[in-house]
Amino acid sequence: MRFAAAQSGGPTCAMNASLSGICEAVSRQGHEILGIRNGIEGLLSERFADLNEMARDPDQRALLKHTPGAALGSCRFRLPEGEEDIYREILRVLRVHSIDALLYTGGNDSMDTVAKLSAWLRENGVPIPVIGIPKTIDNDLVGTDHTPGFGSAVRYLAVTLSEIALDSSVYRAPSVTVCEIMGRDAGWLTASACVPRALGSRYPQLIYLPEADFTLEGFLGDVERALRQDRCVLCAVSEGVRIPQARDFRSGANDAFGHAYLSGVGKFLEGAVREKLGCKVRSVELNIMQRCSGHLASETDLDEAEECGRRAVDLALSGRGGEMVVMRRLEPYEIVYESMPAADAANQIRPFPARWITEEGNQIREEAAAYFLPLIGGALPSYFHLPE
Amino acid sequence: MRFAAAQSGGPTCAMNASLSGICEAVSRQGHEILGIRNGIEGLLSERFADLNEMARDPDQRALLKHTPGAALGSCRFRLPEGEEDIYREILRVLRVHSIDALLYTGGNDSMDTVAKLSAWLRENGVPIPVIGIPKTIDNDLVGTDHTPGFGSAVRYLAVTLSEIALDSSVYRAPSVTVCEIMGRDAGWLTASACVPRALGSRYPQLIYLPEADFTLEGFLGDVERALRQDRCVLCAVSEGVRIPQARDFRSGANDAFGHAYLSGVGKFLEGAVREKLGCKVRSVELNIMQRCSGHLASETDLDEAEECGRRAVDLALSGRGGEMVVMRRLEPYEIVYESMPAADAANQIRPFPARWITEEGNQIREEAAAYFLPLIGGALPSYFHLPE
Repeated sequence: MRFAAAQSGGPTCAMNASLSGICEAVSRQGHEILGIRNGIEGLLSERFADLNEMARDPDQRALLKHTPGAALGSCRFRLPEGEEDIYREILRVLRVHSIDALLYTGGNDSMDTVAKLSAWLRENGVPIPVIGIPKTIDNDLVGTDHTPGFGSAVRYLAVTLSEIALDSSVYRAPSVTVCEIMGRDAGWLTASACVPRALGSRYPQLIYLPEADFTLEGFLGDVERALRQDRCVLCAVSEGVRIPQARDFRSGANDAFGHAYLSGVGKFLEGAVREKLGCKVRSVELNIMQRCSGHLASETDLDEAEECGRRAVDLALSGRGGEMVVMRRLEPYEIVYESMPAADAANQIRPFPARWITEEGNQIREEAAAYFLPLIGGALPSYFHLPE
Repeated sequence: MRFAAAQSGGPTCAMNASLSGICEAVSRQGHEILGIRNGIEGLLSERFADLNEMARDPDQRALLKHTPGAALGSCRFRLPEGEEDIYREILRVLRVHSIDALLYTGGNDSMDTVAKLSAWLRENGVPIPVIGIPKTIDNDLVGTDHTPGFGSAVRYLAVTLSEIALDSSVYRAPSVTVCEIMGRDAGWLTASACVPRALGSRYPQLIYLPEADFTLEGFLGDVERALRQDRCVLCAVSEGVRIPQARDFRSGANDAFGHAYLSGVGKFLEGAVREKLGCKVRSVELNIMQRCSGHLASETDLDEAEECGRRAVDLALSGRGGEMVVMRRLEPYEIVYESMPAADAANQIRPFPARWITEEGNQIREEAAAYFLPLIGGALPSYFHLPE
């Protein structure tokens, strides 16, 4: 059988691990594997890469597993509804290249592609299964305990926030550091900033998610109160929090080029703290390092992502097109791999649970730490602390 | 003999390694060690920490060595000239606490403190040596081959730029990524962005330092040309480059709070690329992670920083106040530890050598790589690359 694999959406530290798992399962079972470059776009323009040699080489597969990004290249492309021509063209390409199964790694947009293409193939009596493999650092896919890529982002964040706290707390003057964290409209990654606290740190004292109401006045009051307790206050703020006073600051547009630039929520809050509280303040946008820092990848995350790739091969072999691999958690921590219709995950967002946010909406409840801790893949660095 | 140690200026990954070296040398030779909190500020307000127990414990010293930041706390305080009262107060505190030698870790501002205090003590016949230990990620201290802290920042940058390149190159559409790098008015750290290229990467294609002339037109022309060669262009830009069109963008002030924020050079250039070239563009400010990412510290850097601490103890024991420890490089790479008057390093900036910048002012010459490579402390991660 000839498998084709593609990657789609924003890269993570773990999507190549899924590809590595696919390659391992395919080559172990004596099948063939073709890589599609740049997702569905590359399929339509017939840009492929022969992965069979790499798939047979355990060293190459291990290197791929530990390489962040999307080795095949990615795309941001949504299959349109009803435009028969595109679906016919995809089918033509699949047939020309003798592709028997398509494995698609991506987020909720990509699951839309898996669902639509599967449905169309089924309606047209084409027995080519299309299988979805989840990935996103946002952890916002429904139906799975967590998504491959998320655990590595959580590990990056836990280590980096701990180091930022060490850096920010050296001076005697009161100071505020605002860390802007990815996740779009979902607060999972920002919420995971509770991990250093769960492991004994006092930082970050404040955590703000899009799932809780946010007001600038509330934020400034929280910071002011925190500064009465601590010389150094670290805030983790989701890029997706909505601030009524700053409706247009996510546009990325330039107000008057050469003078003023609209910026992210971190910079906005930095300005607000400087103006209203008058203390030393800095904002840090953790940016794409949150999804590309392979040197801080969680081995648990990479192992799970790899296994998701293997399971996708199994689903294809059993002809279960239109399914997405999902992970179910057992306690004590163990993952059971299952599947669900990709259509049920497509275009949906799973918000961070409100029950894990404190009443004040500015911190994560202790019980949430048990969700995050098994994902980070082992101990974090220890640091020397001089007693006060 | 009773030593006192203090830390000053912006933290790095290696200044605690110097403190660890001090503690080792002091305790091995049966002396005592007192920590001064928050540099000269803490000395004046008599805030101390007993370090003797830690100094005798090899595990604690190793933990301290690998902890980023300034374990004793830091300060930004310049000793005034001529204000006798402050110097008399320092002497009173040194005597009350039976301090026989003062070891001060810091950058060029701190060497000014070492020089002034040493001179005053000498003039007043007080035989308390004050010794300077260099540290700065900016690598801009004169008289030393490089500064402790720099090698770890170079390692952080090399790994992070490589990962950012993997992330930024996944899409098929042309894109530009601008990475803003620390170093104030010195380009050493930005120049070290040549390390990934020296190790075989094609990124970053463009590197801009404060030591070369910069024009917005020249930059946009460079990027346009680079985009003709490569789908993905990565630029490393020093925070200190001066852009005529953007005189006030380093002010950090808010033009009109709630709407527009002045930002750094990276954001400025991002806006310029978007407006003038119209392609996908992103800016990444690597921010304090460049100086606090202890998990990516260079072991070479930490070992050298530790040795600088030990040598400072030796200098104090031989009564050579007013000196700063410096490192001289031999080929093949080996460091000889020497000293020079702290006054010669005070308040000076060592620029990146013009001979190592290409004629176009947008890249580093190959021969500079030999300077940087021994500092990063061993191999960098390897990645899987699919042939084009």
